[in-house]
Amino acid sequence: MALAGVDTLLVSVGSDLPYLTGYRAMPLERLTMLVLPAAGEPVLVIPELEVARVTPHEAFTIRAWSETEDPVAIVADLAAGSHRAAIGDQTWARFVLALDAAMPDAALVSAGDLMSALRRCKAADEVRRLRAAAEAADDVIARLAEMTLSGSAERAVAREITEMMLVAGHETVEFAIVASGPNGSSPHHEPTDRLIEPGDAIVVDIGGRRDGYCSDTSRTFHVGRPDPAYARAYEVLQRAQEAGVAAVRPGVPAQEIDRAARAVIEAAGYGDRFIHRTGHGIGLDPHEAPYLVEGNDEVLAEGMSFSVEPGIYQPGGWGMRIEDIVVVTADGVDRLNTSDRRLYIVG
Amino acid sequence: MALAGVDTLLVSVGSDLPYLTGYRAMPLERLTMLVLPAAGEPVLVIPELEVARVTPHEAFTIRAWSETEDPVAIVADLAAGSHRAAIGDQTWARFVLALDAAMPDAALVSAGDLMSALRRCKAADEVRRLRAAAEAADDVIARLAEMTLSGSAERAVAREITEMMLVAGHETVEFAIVASGPNGSSPHHEPTDRLIEPGDAIVVDIGGRRDGYCSDTSRTFHVGRPDPAYARAYEVLQRAQEAGVAAVRPGVPAQEIDRAARAVIEAAGYGDRFIHRTGHGIGLDPHEAPYLVEGNDEVLAEGMSFSVEPGIYQPGGWGMRIEDIVVVTADGVDRLNTSDRRLYIVG
Repeated sequence: MALAGVDTLLVSVGSDLPYLTGYRAMPLERLTMLVLPAAGEPVLVIPELEVARVTPHEAFTIRAWSETEDPVAIVADLAAGSHRAAIGDQTWARFVLALDAAMPDAALVSAGDLMSALRRCKAADEVRRLRAAAEAADDVIARLAEMTLSGSAERAVAREITEMMLVAGHETVEFAIVASGPNGSSPHHEPTDRLIEPGDAIVVDIGGRRDGYCSDTSRTFHVGRPDPAYARAYEVLQRAQEAGVAAVRPGVPAQEIDRAARAVIEAAGYGDRFIHRTGHGIGLDPHEAPYLVEGNDEVLAEGMSFSVEPGIYQPGGWGMRIEDIVVVTADGVDRLNTSDRRLYIVG
Repeated sequence: MALAGVDTLLVSVGSDLPYLTGYRAMPLERLTMLVLPAAGEPVLVIPELEVARVTPHEAFTIRAWSETEDPVAIVADLAAGSHRAAIGDQTWARFVLALDAAMPDAALVSAGDLMSALRRCKAADEVRRLRAAAEAADDVIARLAEMTLSGSAERAVAREITEMMLVAGHETVEFAIVASGPNGSSPHHEPTDRLIEPGDAIVVDIGGRRDGYCSDTSRTFHVGRPDPAYARAYEVLQRAQEAGVAAVRPGVPAQEIDRAARAVIEAAGYGDRFIHRTGHGIGLDPHEAPYLVEGNDEVLAEGMSFSVEPGIYQPGGWGMRIEDIVVVTADGVDRLNTSDRRLYIVG
């Protein structure tokens, strides 16, 4: 905070709060906010009816507010004297604006860089949890590979995946993308009632939280053998994903991972069909720093964890994506997802 | 917007966006924002890879941004000339602060009141959807009443409820609170591995989205017959919930519903154990205006929909809650939840 020139940190919904306190607030209209002064005692301002959900800790005291109190006034009072307060990235606009008005002497700035500096390099215990989450997701991919998908609706498959993710140890399921046939060309497709049919490629992208940390993996399935054009593109995608992973090591700028994967796809003539960045950091949040995207020259360091997930999308035709979570080690890379990266031929 | 003195509306994540466009953005780090000028064409600024998820509509045009563009600059450019811009309540702080910096000539204000004025009174079609969601939740309560709960972990029951909610037609499950024995005294308890046992009261509070609109209902279960003290408190709670519902009609201030329910509980000597407001509005969001809380003197009007959900909580002992969603009609109230409000005795 001293380095950032900030005298107060204000942390609300999102993963900064559980990172600092172990408590994840529900994203609701009642304000929860950790008021953490550079010098002084941190106080967690929290709706009275949520108090029972917080595990008390000596690192902070709790200020519960009742239904008829004004939590913004309570926070402003606790932060009195602050000149520059950093506010958590996912705090709701209504609270940002209300605090800005209630704290006329303080400039509000983003706490993003400050929190990201703490969170982006994972400790050994965090890597252990990320690995456990990745293994749980890999389990689901392995089970899915044994199933018959043809004839099922995307939505039904997504529901089965959700159940399998919970059985595999996830506390929550954040998404279960099942994008079949032409729907595969939309990277964030929401499962529909479309029935999967012979000849379909199916992009499956699943993620949830296990022990607080996120899983996120994509594999591609195909009902029956693909045609030669699809198979050729898939072979390119596999090489691109390998090239991306192989480029990961400490000291390399984040954008180089994107360039390594993209170069393979561009060289094969599919450049304009790889329409997203190569990856995103992952930890307590499903997406967090660092982002593997052209223009991001921040340097990779040991403990950073992120996805490497190139994809190729034929608009209105088909999609394909391969995604692993990796961790930067002292001298290279550790892949947390270990399920086969082949095109899975299913019934 | 003219009444609010606002020349631009900026709407991002949350339910304001689907209300205006039919499209719900994922709450992620890539900015999605509808830029709606008081005079001029609305533009939906959206990450390129999400475009396929939007159903095009003549009411707005789409400005897709690629991974290497700056969406904040795009929004600021579209809103150029704005002096007072209202920004959606759930917009992330990082975007509020970045837009504030990128739009030095515009004051940013909360869009909360503006959007709430549009959203709080439901049209007939919205009431129909709320009713369908309520019926789906009632189905789950009816099934639960037939089950044996003793011996199951809260978490396992919550998982079964989740599955039943999806089967009953919900697209998403927002929460499935199963709070047994002493856990019942925490209104927003998260299900644990605690095994439900004979003599437990179990507060069940479930909610999800069906056809975009939210369900939310609470009923209380008991393994075997309750002791006389619990039964007495439950009888008070039932009367309080009836009194709250009976007070609903157009022209009544919102806080009067809270007072009507609270008066019954206070008269019976449990006043300090009813630790939350009586209810919250519901629609596209699980919690929205109007809030039924002391101090809120806004007047109820036809079409407003909200929960009436008093509870009594014995810290470390037990809990109980009864919750219905109701709609204000032309001359009274329409209860959308119709499942029995008795204490459900289960095995």
